[in-house]
Amino acid sequence: VTRILVTGGSGFLGRHCLAALADAGELHAVSRHPGSEGATGVVRHAADLLDDGAIRSVIAKIRPTHLLHAAWEATPVSYASSLENLRWLKAGVTLLHAFGEAGGNRFLGVGTSAEYAPSGTPCVEDETHIRPSTVYGHAKAAMHQAVQGAARHHGFSAAWARVFLPYGPGDPPQRLVPSLIAAFRAGQRLPMSDGGQIRDFVYAPDAGAMLAALLLSDAAGAFNIGSGAAMPLRQAVEAIAASVGGEGLAEFGALPRRPGEPQMLAADMTRTFAVPGMPRPGAFARRLREML
Amino acid sequence: VTRILVTGGSGFLGRHCLAALADAGELHAVSRHPGSEGATGVVRHAADLLDDGAIRSVIAKIRPTHLLHAAWEATPVSYASSLENLRWLKAGVTLLHAFGEAGGNRFLGVGTSAEYAPSGTPCVEDETHIRPSTVYGHAKAAMHQAVQGAARHHGFSAAWARVFLPYGPGDPPQRLVPSLIAAFRAGQRLPMSDGGQIRDFVYAPDAGAMLAALLLSDAAGAFNIGSGAAMPLRQAVEAIAASVGGEGLAEFGALPRRPGEPQMLAADMTRTFAVPGMPRPGAFARRLREML
Repeated sequence: VTRILVTGGSGFLGRHCLAALADAGELHAVSRHPGSEGATGVVRHAADLLDDGAIRSVIAKIRPTHLLHAAWEATPVSYASSLENLRWLKAGVTLLHAFGEAGGNRFLGVGTSAEYAPSGTPCVEDETHIRPSTVYGHAKAAMHQAVQGAARHHGFSAAWARVFLPYGPGDPPQRLVPSLIAAFRAGQRLPMSDGGQIRDFVYAPDAGAMLAALLLSDAAGAFNIGSGAAMPLRQAVEAIAASVGGEGLAEFGALPRRPGEPQMLAADMTRTFAVPGMPRPGAFARRLREML
Repeated sequence: VTRILVTGGSGFLGRHCLAALADAGELHAVSRHPGSEGATGVVRHAADLLDDGAIRSVIAKIRPTHLLHAAWEATPVSYASSLENLRWLKAGVTLLHAFGEAGGNRFLGVGTSAEYAPSGTPCVEDETHIRPSTVYGHAKAAMHQAVQGAARHHGFSAAWARVFLPYGPGDPPQRLVPSLIAAFRAGQRLPMSDGGQIRDFVYAPDAGAMLAALLLSDAAGAFNIGSGAAMPLRQAVEAIAASVGGEGLAEFGALPRRPGEPQMLAADMTRTFAVPGMPRPGAFARRLREML
């Protein structure tokens, strides 16, 4: 029997993972305040994963064969430098141990493109250096090492998904894509940097489908979750503007870039696309039309 | 005022760190069962660092300005695959947080050469990939990421020391150098592999002195702690045999190498030796004579 547990199932990515896993087996979700988001037929459990005892008892109760760990600190903006990241690291280690003890056999952890060092070429999982520049990136990179250590000890199969820039339904309004949509719809002129930065946006339902496929595979190691079609920020902003009738409202070059901002953050998708059954993400402009 | 706290001060490396720090300021050590090892003038505290409350109270009491974190699981042989490594990771995160909250300003963590991917050349801190092959290596690599995250959040200065193969006074008898000395002294013939593996041995009192210098510097980042004079294992074994009259007792080539054993594990010491005041480690054969 396949008993899947998703943590962070009421979060932005987690709910898309739940939707993609609807027919994959007995499906459980745990979060602090379980809502009705995501797929029907999900058994929902309320637990604060930052409480070691709560982690242990929820795992002992469910005894998942498959665990997709998407829960993490995600407060827009402040999450990057928050100490909560280190609390989630500790909670993650407890979770790994409980999962191993309960006989779990497949773990997928959600990491981030922010683990990578800045690079002038698309990031390749085992080649690009890991050199985060945020507390968030360090804590996720630490969690990846802990996942490998626990998998080695307990003998379960483990993968680690480095998610690039997700957008789509459920995206918190303060984040880039929803805030651009809202501003352009309101007819606001927006001063921006030059927009030459290369970024890889991935539609959250596509990311959820890729994470689900990765969880259900036995592919081990780190995997990029992006579109593989990175573009200049300016191109993404213009597509968003065009989709809501806001052409010309973005004022490129009116602001300097933020200090330390990498020129390129792009996913090499070779390794991920080689996983059997891996779905392909849709093009940015098309997904935008579907969403709006 | 400089208030230094050393964790793991009754351990093999920790006691040499304490000795090297004797004149550096107000010196504290914490361990589960504090003994009388190491320098005089050390204020000893008993606490189990695997207990979150104990960590917080010892840090709140001492309020160290400098923290050298050498405590870790170290049971010979079994430490490499033990789940205790992940408990020490969690304890380390708690320690980092308590240190930052208490206003600490300089942290040095003890890592390991086992964090590195196998490489045909000496390991360079920010160039050689981090790709451990043991639970121990993964947990230490995770701790390094946690150190960087906590340092970034709290604003303290942090360094991470990757120690190669320490030997010397206090080395547990089951480990390589003491067990060779004991066997050769007893006149035992020892079947061994071919001995062509390149390894970097560092005399523990030299490693302690280098760690002390690193703690008292403000150099940030990862630093190798080795001799910089790696040699074939066969050469080290022959030097040990010669030093105790056991010439010819080692039978090289009688055993195969262990599967997965790296051909080379050597430290590039450029970065460490560039730290102001960094002492230079002594040559293997000379340190061996001094020790015996």
